[in-house]
Amino acid sequence: MALENQAAGGHEPRRAGRPANRVLTRESITSATLTLLETVGYEGFTIAALARHLKVAPSALYNHVESKRDVLIWVQDHLMGLVDTSGFQSHPWDDALRSWAWSYRAAFAAHAPLVPVIAVMPVGGAYETLRMYEEVTRALLHAGWPRERVISTIVAVESFIYGSAMDVSAPTNIFDPGALADDFPLFTSAVTSSSSAGTERSGADDAFDVGLEALLVGLRAQLERLRSPASAE
Amino acid sequence: MALENQAAGGHEPRRAGRPANRVLTRESITSATLTLLETVGYEGFTIAALARHLKVAPSALYNHVESKRDVLIWVQDHLMGLVDTSGFQSHPWDDALRSWAWSYRAAFAAHAPLVPVIAVMPVGGAYETLRMYEEVTRALLHAGWPRERVISTIVAVESFIYGSAMDVSAPTNIFDPGALADDFPLFTSAVTSSSSAGTERSGADDAFDVGLEALLVGLRAQLERLRSPASAE
Repeated sequence: MALENQAAGGHEPRRAGRPANRVLTRESITSATLTLLETVGYEGFTIAALARHLKVAPSALYNHVESKRDVLIWVQDHLMGLVDTSGFQSHPWDDALRSWAWSYRAAFAAHAPLVPVIAVMPVGGAYETLRMYEEVTRALLHAGWPRERVISTIVAVESFIYGSAMDVSAPTNIFDPGALADDFPLFTSAVTSSSSAGTERSGADDAFDVGLEALLVGLRAQLERLRSPASAE
Repeated sequence: MALENQAAGGHEPRRAGRPANRVLTRESITSATLTLLETVGYEGFTIAALARHLKVAPSALYNHVESKRDVLIWVQDHLMGLVDTSGFQSHPWDDALRSWAWSYRAAFAAHAPLVPVIAVMPVGGAYETLRMYEEVTRALLHAGWPRERVISTIVAVESFIYGSAMDVSAPTNIFDPGALADDFPLFTSAVTSSSSAGTERSGADDAFDVGLEALLVGLRAQLERLRSPASAE
């Protein structure tokens, strides 16, 4: 890792053994922000806290970013850049949406504390994020989705992805009724016989698969109806 | 509101004008926790902070709860108790699931900061929560869902609900590409012509409706296939 003397009191002569500070780059700031958000959460995240975490003076950080919002855009763009959109260029819209959704969930499952932050974050200024949405939009329009339905369709699938990304970090015993098992026998038996119970596949993967396939079947039916309104009910 | 002298230093004689403290009940503690979680988030929520918020000594709170976990169970049970499950007794499973989902989303949309907390919280000891799951399970089994598919089906719908509940608090301009509009013309035009644009219906309601109806169509198809495996592909 590249190191450089950027201490706040930079007038002191550099000495061997003196703690050097990280070069501040978009990458290093983004990476530090990801770590910090995991531990202190959105409420505890401030430019001052980030500066402490990076061992630089806040003023050094303000040479690179104007505000907390700037840093969060970098984080959003970093995560969205991890989402695989390659399917939209080569596959039917529904197959592409499936691989996009699995990849999107994986990117956010690895940073579950960020889900509620990014889920409500405006996309203005976030280039990678907008690039992703542009690709999804192009594919949906090409498949015949009416322009006015594109956003609600994307948000519907995203809501499922965000909820599912949080579910990945749920404890495996989340549905264990404990001492109340006898009071709720049907639910208890459903938990015990759950198809993921005792298998290597996680309950979260199972549920994501069930929900995503159901969504795709339903969306295909909606598209068919929208494309041939004459045959609508 | 009932008031009572419960100050920690209760040996002092009670004087007129001395600030009285709230009676600590399950209801008053739950209500204070909801308020506190909205402002300080899950990371900032401690028994000590709750005691300060309630203006009582932590020891007074420990007469009612053993831990943060106890308080969170009350909050979970309170929110789940708001979810309308009446449809499961009188309607087909899919209609009941629809009204349950709308009601579930409404309960959590009003407390969006709690979504990531409750979404991964074990249900052990949470009576109202387990009662709700028992009713949903009974209806799904009655409709012919195989026991081993009940949990993944519930989690799939819940993930969509949790993600959608967060989306309710997203700013209305969340998809405004701002200065980058010209770089992403397809997405920009989809945002502008979005079916909720300029209407009274919110984009979040639109997306929830689209996604929920798609899910229900897909789940109905899954159930049909599961009930008549002979006709499966």
